[in-house]
Amino acid sequence: MQLVDCVWGTGIPVDQFGAILAADSDHEIKAVLATQNETATGVQSDIAALRRAMDEAQHPALLYVDGVSSIGSVDFRMDEWGVDLAVSGSQKGFMLPAGLAILAASQKALEVSASAQMHRCYFDFKDMIATNATGYFPYTPPMTLLRGLRASIDVMLDEGLDNIFARHRFLAEGVRCAVAAWGLELCAKGPEWHSDTVSAIMVPKGYDANEVISRAYHRYGLSLGAGLSQMAGKLFRIGHLGDLNELMLISAIAGAEMAMQDVGIPIVAGSGVAAAETFYRENGEHLLMAAQ
Amino acid sequence: MQLVDCVWGTGIPVDQFGAILAADSDHEIKAVLATQNETATGVQSDIAALRRAMDEAQHPALLYVDGVSSIGSVDFRMDEWGVDLAVSGSQKGFMLPAGLAILAASQKALEVSASAQMHRCYFDFKDMIATNATGYFPYTPPMTLLRGLRASIDVMLDEGLDNIFARHRFLAEGVRCAVAAWGLELCAKGPEWHSDTVSAIMVPKGYDANEVISRAYHRYGLSLGAGLSQMAGKLFRIGHLGDLNELMLISAIAGAEMAMQDVGIPIVAGSGVAAAETFYRENGEHLLMAAQ
Amino acid sequence: MQLVDCVWGTGIPVDQFGAILAADSDHEIKAVLATQNETATGVQSDIAALRRAMDEAQHPALLYVDGVSSIGSVDFRMDEWGVDLAVSGSQKGFMLPAGLAILAASQKALEVSASAQMHRCYFDFKDMIATNATGYFPYTPPMTLLRGLRASIDVMLDEGLDNIFARHRFLAEGVRCAVAAWGLELCAKGPEWHSDTVSAIMVPKGYDANEVISRAYHRYGLSLGAGLSQMAGKLFRIGHLGDLNELMLISAIAGAEMAMQDVGIPIVAGSGVAAAETFYRENGEHLLMAAQ
Amino acid sequence: MQLVDCVWGTGIPVDQFGAILAADSDHEIKAVLATQNETATGVQSDIAALRRAMDEAQHPALLYVDGVSSIGSVDFRMDEWGVDLAVSGSQKGFMLPAGLAILAASQKALEVSASAQMHRCYFDFKDMIATNATGYFPYTPPMTLLRGLRASIDVMLDEGLDNIFARHRFLAEGVRCAVAAWGLELCAKGPEWHSDTVSAIMVPKGYDANEVISRAYHRYGLSLGAGLSQMAGKLFRIGHLGDLNELMLISAIAGAEMAMQDVGIPIVAGSGVAAAETFYRENGEHLLMAAQ
Repeated sequence: MQLVDCVWGTGIPVDQFGAILAADSDHEIKAVLATQNETATGVQSDIAALRRAMDEAQHPALLYVDGVSSIGSVDFRMDEWGVDLAVSGSQKGFMLPAGLAILAASQKALEVSASAQMHRCYFDFKDMIATNATGYFPYTPPMTLLRGLRASIDVMLDEGLDNIFARHRFLAEGVRCAVAAWGLELCAKGPEWHSDTVSAIMVPKGYDANEVISRAYHRYGLSLGAGLSQMAGKLFRIGHLGDLNELMLISAIAGAEMAMQDVGIPIVAGSGVAAAETFYRENGEHLLMAAQ
Repeated sequence: MQLVDCVWGTGIPVDQFGAILAADSDHEIKAVLATQNETATGVQSDIAALRRAMDEAQHPALLYVDGVSSIGSVDFRMDEWGVDLAVSGSQKGFMLPAGLAILAASQKALEVSASAQMHRCYFDFKDMIATNATGYFPYTPPMTLLRGLRASIDVMLDEGLDNIFARHRFLAEGVRCAVAAWGLELCAKGPEWHSDTVSAIMVPKGYDANEVISRAYHRYGLSLGAGLSQMAGKLFRIGHLGDLNELMLISAIAGAEMAMQDVGIPIVAGSGVAAAETFYRENGEHLLMAAQ
Repeated sequence: MQLVDCVWGTGIPVDQFGAILAADSDHEIKAVLATQNETATGVQSDIAALRRAMDEAQHPALLYVDGVSSIGSVDFRMDEWGVDLAVSGSQKGFMLPAGLAILAASQKALEVSASAQMHRCYFDFKDMIATNATGYFPYTPPMTLLRGLRASIDVMLDEGLDNIFARHRFLAEGVRCAVAAWGLELCAKGPEWHSDTVSAIMVPKGYDANEVISRAYHRYGLSLGAGLSQMAGKLFRIGHLGDLNELMLISAIAGAEMAMQDVGIPIVAGSGVAAAETFYRENGEHLLMAAQ
Repeated sequence: MQLVDCVWGTGIPVDQFGAILAADSDHEIKAVLATQNETATGVQSDIAALRRAMDEAQHPALLYVDGVSSIGSVDFRMDEWGVDLAVSGSQKGFMLPAGLAILAASQKALEVSASAQMHRCYFDFKDMIATNATGYFPYTPPMTLLRGLRASIDVMLDEGLDNIFARHRFLAEGVRCAVAAWGLELCAKGPEWHSDTVSAIMVPKGYDANEVISRAYHRYGLSLGAGLSQMAGKLFRIGHLGDLNELMLISAIAGAEMAMQDVGIPIVAGSGVAAAETFYRENGEHLLMAAQ
């Protein structure tokens, strides 16, 4: 397994992937694994570009995409991008409790799967596929989540995927305006990496992001995400996906700026909220149109 | 029936009530009806003072209190204040759907009720009291709300009434800070009339408060209350009672300031939120203590 | 007010009503009040026949129908039967918690209402009608029940009113088979009075129906209805309306026969259930068809 | 891996297990896997006896118990029986939706786990244990189920485990009385194998159990379990665990006997219900006591 390491805050280095694949003339690489949206750093990668790089390298590897925090919230095109295996979960864009892993496999992936050697039981595609025709499930099915999924997909189709994607971009942009107004930076090192489903916000040097998170939770009842590994203590995250509107997100922005002030970070009270409000007021008219 | 009219934005004129009762030497006045918290104008009255005025006038009238939007959220003392009939509802401080009228009657009120001449059926105390001992209900009981009431009362006793009252005052004060920062005024004409459960906010002359309300609802998904009768179009209301914390209320403040800007009222973006944030940050430490 | 008394277990004596109206040549009778389904005795009356009797008497009285335990479960025709005021509730055929009174008034009733002298507030049609056009409610609306009503009406229209009426008749008939198998009698004194929404079952002389009810509740977790007034202690009731199928009702039949045995009534174990099973098996095929 | 095959309808052959272990003088057998309650056949095994056989053989193998359909419903003693790994689920005795696998491991199992070679990720004990002290979860936790588990455990402790076990035995015995009254047999070949959480009922030769199941589901809305593998078409199952009382179970018995009659199996209408009723009436007084 070849791991492509990259600077935290950047996404998939498509050119590098292309070069590695081009160099693999014996096609020893069987699959490329890509995360469309990296939750811990708030970095979004360009899966379409990755597909193009694979095609240019004329490499037959399968393309696996981790779309847990992106599918249903930002654009994702299984067929058009030639994705062979996509995985998501119930608890992000599908707005349900955690509990369902949602997988989609291409015909090519299924064929490869047939000759796989690893012992599998619960996670074997074959048992699932065998019962598809009758609508049954090979094991005890999580009925509440399956019914919930049916309801949430209805809600999503009512809003329309394009409207959902636009709303996520719009809401995320408001958070980014708040971050700029605070004088802070995102972990994502440039607009091309900005995630529309989660923003990872770097606290200034000398402050502990975990203190911000703890304060937000214990004093204001707000759950912020934490930085992991080399970003532990350096950032906190505001998630912004699913059933969300401007005012809900302003709650989170307000809570974050209050918690930051409480731990001594020099933030002007209301500065982030004001920037978000102004952005939302000046750019959201299309949402009102869509809702009518 | 003698109606005591008073300027909108003021509460019960206790002295005037006292004078009327003192003048009623024949005791023709059978009951005094007082609203503890006037929802439409955000005005709170002093029931304890009213009781004192009644006592000073040595008048035997019954004291009826409309506590719909106050009981459970601000201090109310049935026995100590000698209230003979108090009415509340499930949908305010008790945090349930609308549907239950909650009545409390003093022994004196029950005795008077026994000789009342008006035809009654559903609302007769007698049928209710007759079944109290067995726990039954004389008619089909609203079971879901009764069970809900049991749960919400448990929640309230867990928090403690004194903590609830302090929290309501604290949250309301933040809204009042926002109003001041906007350069606007409450309908309540002085701190002695400030309601801790709802703030009625006057829009500047020349603007239509109903446009603010409509914009908040249709563009930001925020339900603000409307002015009624002589206040129609002149004010909008932010309710702040029940299961509520700072960040939820900041959502409403933000939505109100965005909607006001949208209809042309000159409000500085984020100004109300900033004032509320600062108030909450500087004064809420006791809440953190209470929660621990 | 002229009250027409009749033997408990019989319904509206239509001929007698007709005779009274015919004799009222000065039209002093302003309205006829009829209960379509008398819950306490399980007696259904013939509202269409009552209308015909009123028409034959050429009497202009209004026709008021209490349809609390019938509307939505058995046939009711506001317009065709010339009903001027119909009342129902959320907690019977509409399958919701108690809390909504559902009223329908004819144009004629509304006109008469306009000149009514009685003081009204909450229950005045005028305030309700005034807000109909905007979709608002004059007072705090019971939103949860209104949304629930929307959902339950969708469910009812999906099943189809004719199917619902047939299902209620079918399910009720199974209970009546059980009663016959027990060797007991209904309070309703003949098939023309049989209610399809509730069966009131007479216990044999010398036994206390309230003991059956108490035993069913405390030992088997089954809520049976009680006899009221002159039927107190003489009967117990099995309700059978709303979201119900054969097996749910067999639970109630089984519980009743177990409780009756427990208090010494000589019932053959399983006899009522066996009779209901046989009736349901031999007559329910149309329901299977309807469901497909 | 050594698989001990046994006749369907019998449980763990404890003597044979003991003999195999005694013969394994090199201790090549690392673990014994036993299912306490075999759902597909309704067979309960004696885990305490298995432990004794292991002890008598003086064999150090770990004891793994599949308690999915037994733990929380029938007696299970992790420590006393020296169980090293027990697995259950949320959807059986814990009365929740499917979704949680509940595992308990002995200290000995954890020690062995530390040196295990198989690649693991989500199911690795280490990550779970590492976060135990803080109350966190190493991955996205299924919050709704965890909160539900807390609630259902409270319900179970309120009833008392001994009362729960007695109730399951009592309810199951009523089903077995019904089966006997039908003249049918359980798959379990003797009282020592009777499961108190599920009864697998053999249909007479010449009939298809799957037709019974299909009829019960499509005509009566009743979900019966199916026979698997060599029992496919030969049996149907009535589950009887969790939040259940006599009348609920009589629904299922009635539905089963109606469906069996519908497909031509010669069953006397009401015979199973009558037998269950009589058993429940004559033996359930202790439950009434327990509830008081």
